[in-house]
Amino acid sequence: MAGNTLGTLFRFTTWGESHGPAIGVVVDGVPPKIPLAEADIQHWLDRRRPGQSRYTTQRQEPDQVKILSGTFEGETTGTPIHLMIENVDQRSRDYRNIADRFRPGHADYAYWKKYGLRDYRGGGRASARETASRVAAGAVARKVLGPGIAIRGALVQIGPHAVDRAAWDWRAIEDNPFWCPDPLMPARWAEYLDGVRKSGSSAGAVIEVVAEGVPAGLGEPVYDKLDGDLARAMMTINAVKGVEIGAGFAAAALSGEENSDEMRMRGGKVAFLSNNAGGILGGISTGQDIVVRFAVKPTSSILKPMRTVDAEGNDVVIETHGRHDPCVGIRAVPVGEAMMACVLADHLLRYRAIGGEV
Amino acid sequence: MAGNTLGTLFRFTTWGESHGPAIGVVVDGVPPKIPLAEADIQHWLDRRRPGQSRYTTQRQEPDQVKILSGTFEGETTGTPIHLMIENVDQRSRDYRNIADRFRPGHADYAYWKKYGLRDYRGGGRASARETASRVAAGAVARKVLGPGIAIRGALVQIGPHAVDRAAWDWRAIEDNPFWCPDPLMPARWAEYLDGVRKSGSSAGAVIEVVAEGVPAGLGEPVYDKLDGDLARAMMTINAVKGVEIGAGFAAAALSGEENSDEMRMRGGKVAFLSNNAGGILGGISTGQDIVVRFAVKPTSSILKPMRTVDAEGNDVVIETHGRHDPCVGIRAVPVGEAMMACVLADHLLRYRAIGGEV
Amino acid sequence: MAGNTLGTLFRFTTWGESHGPAIGVVVDGVPPKIPLAEADIQHWLDRRRPGQSRYTTQRQEPDQVKILSGTFEGETTGTPIHLMIENVDQRSRDYRNIADRFRPGHADYAYWKKYGLRDYRGGGRASARETASRVAAGAVARKVLGPGIAIRGALVQIGPHAVDRAAWDWRAIEDNPFWCPDPLMPARWAEYLDGVRKSGSSAGAVIEVVAEGVPAGLGEPVYDKLDGDLARAMMTINAVKGVEIGAGFAAAALSGEENSDEMRMRGGKVAFLSNNAGGILGGISTGQDIVVRFAVKPTSSILKPMRTVDAEGNDVVIETHGRHDPCVGIRAVPVGEAMMACVLADHLLRYRAIGGEV
Amino acid sequence: MAGNTLGTLFRFTTWGESHGPAIGVVVDGVPPKIPLAEADIQHWLDRRRPGQSRYTTQRQEPDQVKILSGTFEGETTGTPIHLMIENVDQRSRDYRNIADRFRPGHADYAYWKKYGLRDYRGGGRASARETASRVAAGAVARKVLGPGIAIRGALVQIGPHAVDRAAWDWRAIEDNPFWCPDPLMPARWAEYLDGVRKSGSSAGAVIEVVAEGVPAGLGEPVYDKLDGDLARAMMTINAVKGVEIGAGFAAAALSGEENSDEMRMRGGKVAFLSNNAGGILGGISTGQDIVVRFAVKPTSSILKPMRTVDAEGNDVVIETHGRHDPCVGIRAVPVGEAMMACVLADHLLRYRAIGGEV
Repeated sequence: MAGNTLGTLFRFTTWGESHGPAIGVVVDGVPPKIPLAEADIQHWLDRRRPGQSRYTTQRQEPDQVKILSGTFEGETTGTPIHLMIENVDQRSRDYRNIADRFRPGHADYAYWKKYGLRDYRGGGRASARETASRVAAGAVARKVLGPGIAIRGALVQIGPHAVDRAAWDWRAIEDNPFWCPDPLMPARWAEYLDGVRKSGSSAGAVIEVVAEGVPAGLGEPVYDKLDGDLARAMMTINAVKGVEIGAGFAAAALSGEENSDEMRMRGGKVAFLSNNAGGILGGISTGQDIVVRFAVKPTSSILKPMRTVDAEGNDVVIETHGRHDPCVGIRAVPVGEAMMACVLADHLLRYRAIGGEV
Repeated sequence: MAGNTLGTLFRFTTWGESHGPAIGVVVDGVPPKIPLAEADIQHWLDRRRPGQSRYTTQRQEPDQVKILSGTFEGETTGTPIHLMIENVDQRSRDYRNIADRFRPGHADYAYWKKYGLRDYRGGGRASARETASRVAAGAVARKVLGPGIAIRGALVQIGPHAVDRAAWDWRAIEDNPFWCPDPLMPARWAEYLDGVRKSGSSAGAVIEVVAEGVPAGLGEPVYDKLDGDLARAMMTINAVKGVEIGAGFAAAALSGEENSDEMRMRGGKVAFLSNNAGGILGGISTGQDIVVRFAVKPTSSILKPMRTVDAEGNDVVIETHGRHDPCVGIRAVPVGEAMMACVLADHLLRYRAIGGEV
Repeated sequence: MAGNTLGTLFRFTTWGESHGPAIGVVVDGVPPKIPLAEADIQHWLDRRRPGQSRYTTQRQEPDQVKILSGTFEGETTGTPIHLMIENVDQRSRDYRNIADRFRPGHADYAYWKKYGLRDYRGGGRASARETASRVAAGAVARKVLGPGIAIRGALVQIGPHAVDRAAWDWRAIEDNPFWCPDPLMPARWAEYLDGVRKSGSSAGAVIEVVAEGVPAGLGEPVYDKLDGDLARAMMTINAVKGVEIGAGFAAAALSGEENSDEMRMRGGKVAFLSNNAGGILGGISTGQDIVVRFAVKPTSSILKPMRTVDAEGNDVVIETHGRHDPCVGIRAVPVGEAMMACVLADHLLRYRAIGGEV
Repeated sequence: MAGNTLGTLFRFTTWGESHGPAIGVVVDGVPPKIPLAEADIQHWLDRRRPGQSRYTTQRQEPDQVKILSGTFEGETTGTPIHLMIENVDQRSRDYRNIADRFRPGHADYAYWKKYGLRDYRGGGRASARETASRVAAGAVARKVLGPGIAIRGALVQIGPHAVDRAAWDWRAIEDNPFWCPDPLMPARWAEYLDGVRKSGSSAGAVIEVVAEGVPAGLGEPVYDKLDGDLARAMMTINAVKGVEIGAGFAAAALSGEENSDEMRMRGGKVAFLSNNAGGILGGISTGQDIVVRFAVKPTSSILKPMRTVDAEGNDVVIETHGRHDPCVGIRAVPVGEAMMACVLADHLLRYRAIGGEV
């Protein structure tokens, strides 16, 4: 398979470059008779849209989505849903000075080695612009999942500054431009990022995405485990370098009795006394919250001069101008939510196929 | 797809439960005329085999592999290769006392919720025994990759004790029962694990797998990125809770200039001055070493009593007897190597398909 | 998988309804650096376009294709190619009188049973309009195959009137509106179809597609045989009810010695003395011409009144007005060629993956 | 994908050569808690077994199937089911005289061109022996479909002699060694085949497979149409050269009003007045019987000398000895039934995934 498709039953294919006329996504496998309007998708795209604070790229993209197929009289028909977003603010001139040299940390060099050519105009398919298609697909996935499953993301670390988990308040994420759940942290991040931006540098981040209300039984043994598919989905988001579920890497330092989530009956239902598993055991959801975290590296496009080589094999120095996110991790929050929604929707349909009543 | 298959072109399907008569793997998509004998596979299975030190389960399995199809006169024919391993030491009586209650941290509960039944005899498909099939597939993958690509794994942390990376010596991994690359650490781990075992507890671990000699160009944008496929492959290994590439989660705390690997020409070739990317940019290999780490949670089967529930909805206490690994992470090293080999072989074939000369 | 995607490595996904704003196709897996311009695709779309003679529907669609992604400076980049065709002549009023009753022989009833709804405006995804996307994908496939492989289709039967194979002349197909290779038959077909049209009826057809220059070695045992994939690809074209390879159904009546194509050396190369196999043995191409035929049923939309039922369960009579092809098989010729091209391109890439030098 | 796997949700992978130690199939995606014993599978294998009359190969294979995984206490568990059949009667000496020359009509030449080698011992994967794995998978598929769906096959033509459809009696198929539904035809076929056998020749056949009780709604637009998947499944059976649905190729000569199946209400249900569609419209089942026919070419292995070439490029003459079916189509009947069952089971699960209550 050629690589621009994700999912088995809820299955989407994205297309489009950052500097072409448009980008889009074909969402296939959506059951019929689900209400779906452009506004349902636009809502989530607006959350990802750049240029909403000084901490994200100043590229101005309205990101207006159009539904070109797959619905009739406000409902899905079971046929493929094509969502298209036109590129408005392309400004390809910004990239001319880097057309023949490879930006360290960027996909330039790898694409050039693989394909023998470069679309230097802004990353092409490797651009973060591709993630708008993911968010659009995720909006459809949320409709498939229905209102009983809530997916929320938060930024839990920028650079070396992690949130205080004891202070976690989901309501806080709407009150700051960082999706930060710790009410005291945004001020500190703002100050930190202002410094990063002024110095022409960039910062990394860690995002946590939580799905509540997920029924037990989603996920397939052995290679299509729910956590395996989530790991893949998150790792394919631009700039992600690590993914963990529940306690994640910290589990390595726990003892067996600390890590294993004990169970008790509570009001006639099974209750877990902790959630180190992140809601997944043996690759299958348990009914607890699904908890995924992923690390985003600092933006590779920085103003500081870096040593690199050019396509002719010369040592050169590069400075990347243009409009970039000082911390690309901020805009990754809605993208991580979308990937969670898509993976869950796929496994929900797969579970139904073998008789799961979900 | 039903979940027991991995890969697009180099593609394997595993079957078998820990307490059935045998387990096996069908490896499809192997090019013809590659020399392959049972000994090529047995070599790697022997490294994974339990019972080789007091730090792994005492289950005694010879793990003798048989090639039942796909080769002729010592070479692959291009047809599916079926590898079968008989289960010898099954002792299902060990599991009778847990037949109706759910072991915390185990897949018992999730399987029961999903499938409405339990094969209580030892984990069924969720057993670590399934990983022998992965190692067998990995052995075939190494033949597809050829001698130019070397894949090695090491244990870099047990419980809270991490190796000193400055002391890394690949030769050391053969000198201790832990695949430990830090010559001074095995004594400390041995002492730590003896204490863990005596107390009826268990320990987690972190494994690092490195592939050297991988050509640039492997990996497909956007959803079939090499790192995405590696993340999925590693996360589907039993008990894995986190995966990272290169600098991984630590990248979140670095600045853009620290994280981006600069490039210089060295002897007519491109050389990177660091490898925070772990050999992958934009989802595509760069020619640097591919570096993956994954975290294994502590074994869930412990002697200490734990609170849980049974299938009838009663609060109960469970003690898991039987032969278990105090640190299942030790035996995960050859498994991680095998998954790396399989993912690389798949992408090598995929790259060839579009004309890549590798 | 959701059903709107075809192929493993050369892989396309189509979207769009006959009465929506546009239709399109995302072609993924195309190798980089292949010259591709809109004119390359338009050429083949023009051949399929309706309204070019009085024997096809009078719907007027310019079918102008736009390349929205996947090329740069006139060459493919290896990223997904999105081709979009706007629907111009929609006239959905034509379909109002059939909105609540099921047209015999149409997909109306099956869609309604499956999805619980109807997009009565003209067939939705089941419309022959979808085949424009196939032709666009096929145009890209031809570029992947290169100039050494020539794919041509011909109409060999309309209603009961079959061509005289002894009179076969490929040059003739450009001289008549039927792609007819028998110079004497078009006059007869024209007379026959005029009668069919006047009586408000319709006619079926048989199409033959031949691929010359296909190298030996394409096709995978056992379930991805080249003929299996061709059969599926052709059978999924609207209104197709049968597919055969080489001698096809006639082979059932031959003796073993009549049917088996003998071989001799001719100028240092293997030559077959006949081609009952249609160029495929054991699912793999032999180097002979690939020969596929498929039968298209008569158009279901006819003026004659037919007995049917409506969505409320009443017996009713239906007359289908609107602009329909009296013989939809005519326009199926370029579609069959396109499907041949797509299947061959997919297997060409798959063969390269295991080292085939094609 | 490598080609030895079929299906999306009900998904099986076969392995094994005709002259290796065993053959087998891994069936993945079977829902849990379906009763399944070896006898359920053996029943169908016994029907395909060779050597049961003088009209099939005299190779003696007991074809004893073993379930090696995927069931527990007589029920499926949801994990992959591995079915293995040992090869008993291998006699590879029979094939020595053809080791270096290509049998006309056989896959020998194509495999040699593709893979650069030959397993001359009897066809390897291209042997009809592989179809035993299909029958085993089909037996599992029937259990997934449940008792409400009945699948039966019949031989409707041997050589030039077709049955009288007016005389069709399903009960007759158990009374003769040909699965012939026309009580008067077996005597004629017997006489015909005796002549064929004595002359060292072989005969082709046409098989019809009918599935009754299939609910409306199975099949996915556009490329995963039910008829498309059936066409592929049947065409991949050894020696099949044509597939048709319902009226098939004969539909090309019908008028629109003859071909379209009219509908009336009968006892509150929709009834079709004919079944030219073969139970499928727009790629989706309508609730009518699914009717598929396929043509099998005459066995290529015949005693008569044929002209061919050898691997060194010499013109030679070949005579194929050994034990072959004079009409391989006879044993194709249970294989066709099995493929029908597998395709329907796959689409049944897929329909459930989008909410279909079947």
